[in-house]
Amino acid sequence: MTHADLTMDAAAAALAGVGRAQELDPSDTYARVWWSVLAEPGDGAAGELIARFGATDALRIALSDTDDEWASARGRWKPRADSGSVHRSLDAARRADATLLVPSDPRWPSRLDDLGVHAPHALWIRGDVEGLGGVPTVAIVGARAATPYGEAVAADLAADLAGSGVVVVSGAAYGIDGAAHRAALSTGGRTVAFLAGGVDRAYPRGHEALLARIAETGAVVSETPCGAAPTKWRFLSRNRLIAAVADAVVVVEAGHRSGSLNTAAHAGQLGRALGAVPGPVTSAASAGCHRVLREFDGVCVTSAADVREMLGQGASAGPAGGGRTDETSRLLDALSPRVGREVADLARRAGFAYADAQAMLGLAELEGRASRGDDGLWRSVMRRGDAPARDR
Amino acid sequence: MTHADLTMDAAAAALAGVGRAQELDPSDTYARVWWSVLAEPGDGAAGELIARFGATDALRIALSDTDDEWASARGRWKPRADSGSVHRSLDAARRADATLLVPSDPRWPSRLDDLGVHAPHALWIRGDVEGLGGVPTVAIVGARAATPYGEAVAADLAADLAGSGVVVVSGAAYGIDGAAHRAALSTGGRTVAFLAGGVDRAYPRGHEALLARIAETGAVVSETPCGAAPTKWRFLSRNRLIAAVADAVVVVEAGHRSGSLNTAAHAGQLGRALGAVPGPVTSAASAGCHRVLREFDGVCVTSAADVREMLGQGASAGPAGGGRTDETSRLLDALSPRVGREVADLARRAGFAYADAQAMLGLAELEGRASRGDDGLWRSVMRRGDAPARDR
Repeated sequence: MTHADLTMDAAAAALAGVGRAQELDPSDTYARVWWSVLAEPGDGAAGELIARFGATDALRIALSDTDDEWASARGRWKPRADSGSVHRSLDAARRADATLLVPSDPRWPSRLDDLGVHAPHALWIRGDVEGLGGVPTVAIVGARAATPYGEAVAADLAADLAGSGVVVVSGAAYGIDGAAHRAALSTGGRTVAFLAGGVDRAYPRGHEALLARIAETGAVVSETPCGAAPTKWRFLSRNRLIAAVADAVVVVEAGHRSGSLNTAAHAGQLGRALGAVPGPVTSAASAGCHRVLREFDGVCVTSAADVREMLGQGASAGPAGGGRTDETSRLLDALSPRVGREVADLARRAGFAYADAQAMLGLAELEGRASRGDDGLWRSVMRRGDAPARDR
Repeated sequence: MTHADLTMDAAAAALAGVGRAQELDPSDTYARVWWSVLAEPGDGAAGELIARFGATDALRIALSDTDDEWASARGRWKPRADSGSVHRSLDAARRADATLLVPSDPRWPSRLDDLGVHAPHALWIRGDVEGLGGVPTVAIVGARAATPYGEAVAADLAADLAGSGVVVVSGAAYGIDGAAHRAALSTGGRTVAFLAGGVDRAYPRGHEALLARIAETGAVVSETPCGAAPTKWRFLSRNRLIAAVADAVVVVEAGHRSGSLNTAAHAGQLGRALGAVPGPVTSAASAGCHRVLREFDGVCVTSAADVREMLGQGASAGPAGGGRTDETSRLLDALSPRVGREVADLARRAGFAYADAQAMLGLAELEGRASRGDDGLWRSVMRRGDAPARDR
């Protein structure tokens, strides 16, 4: 049956038990459920049609038999138009205790609107619907085939950031994603998993318990309806949501052709802060991160402080330099800790006028770097942590 | 004795046996030897005085007793004005078989002129004076306290580059520098060591044999006169020559406050291509490299090909992407290698119009990715190296 009953009463009835979704505008909300069944994630034609006519009128146009500019798109939507599958997905959502969130809801993460016509029509959420927007959010993503190094760095970053109130978003995959979610949970921080398939399906299967824990304090989110399988296309589409919902995206480990580079590309297109954790150039698991640094102009991330700087929370690093490069180091070079020297001798050795050398020695004495002995001769004062005199 | 006899005959006599230096303009060349004794490397006042009046007149002004704008600088030059030390340095150069190179010599590396008033007045060279300029030159520098990882990467880069005609410049220190020089020598390539002290002094002592080997086929170079000690100031000044003489500077490993960051800063100021090799964020020996990437906007270097790209020799990397992100992957997702499916079924699963799905299946068949069986049903064709269907 391809008929969609979009009357308010029918819509409200269909939406019963899927959160507050039906309170806003049941017809619009219900039409969006239909859209999430008809169109693959990121379908630009669907996004354009909805933007122009609103979800309900757009759905009527989509399901009509007119021969207009939408005819080609209609060809891919109509084979899926079946009120049975729509209601099955709503039943599955109720069983999974999933909440439906639509753009008109004040809790909708407005950052997703940056995706334009590729923005999702609705989100299905297991867990806490609050806090998907408005708070500092970092996506920590990476390879499933992670190394112990990568997982340790991901966990360190996630624990530090989540522990200080930053929401850690990831994709719930094995490897880096899982390490980030787990570390965020361990600090009592908030973490959100975006899935490629329906939120009623634990994917990967081995992360069923982890996803349940994430849903307890954070959220498990998808734009695909409950029951939807996580296809490769949907994984790639899901990556755009991870990039869009975050203020900053950090790739921790990724192979040369990892899907995380797709997330990084989306982050770049959306103008999100983008960074990557470097690793040994001999490690294939870091090759994708080095591509982010080289080809995507990503920021080199070595610590949570670097990520905070990307969020605009941290102080920028001080000016770089190779230690004391000023004239004082020339003078201090000329001093010896053992052999006392006269000012004239030091001036000649360091290449200064007598008066200049005398003034600089006075300053060095104040700083505790030089001392004048009872014999009237100058010596250097060695301090713990001082580099040897011939350190390059 | 502070008198400098700059007459042509006296100058030519003093310069006897230090290469072709005296052929060009003995007075100018001899005055530059005096300057290298009087002024510390990079002394901008000396550079300015010489730029304005030429080396010989500048020296007369420096050694006069006038109370002019140079009085302050004169205060640091005159204590060193001693014809005895000048002649001792020339004697040491003759014993070390060092050649004096001055800016008017066609073999002078013109890239050094980018240093302006901080350019060296002359260079002392043990080995081959040719090839300091005009050929592609890469500086490979880094920490003395290098790890086996860093030394291996430095050696790989240096061997690959030197083996293909690139001159590898470094600072002859233990660690990264030594690894780069050795690897360049091992391929029969050309390598040049810039020292902070006189070229007659092997520094570090443990690299005496290495320096001798470098001088056999490449060159050991310094702006300080023979006999000069390698002070900390001179190490830092030497770094500007390494940056200036190179087309590209690559930091392989460096601690957070390594002197290599000083070389990197000079490279940035001079507009040289600047890169750093990443490493584990948990390795202190890579912390300086990550600073180069973060704070100096350095290029992430993972291979000799990356360095060639910095030299403008390599093809730029292709567009980045996370694998097949096009619509074809949606269609291929819907195919199974075992279960045959009809076009209408595949169109619905993948979200395409019937005609589109049919056309794409035809293309996929041509590419060997899909096949239509005798039963008229479509199946996917698994190929070695294909990612599993749910690879993110």
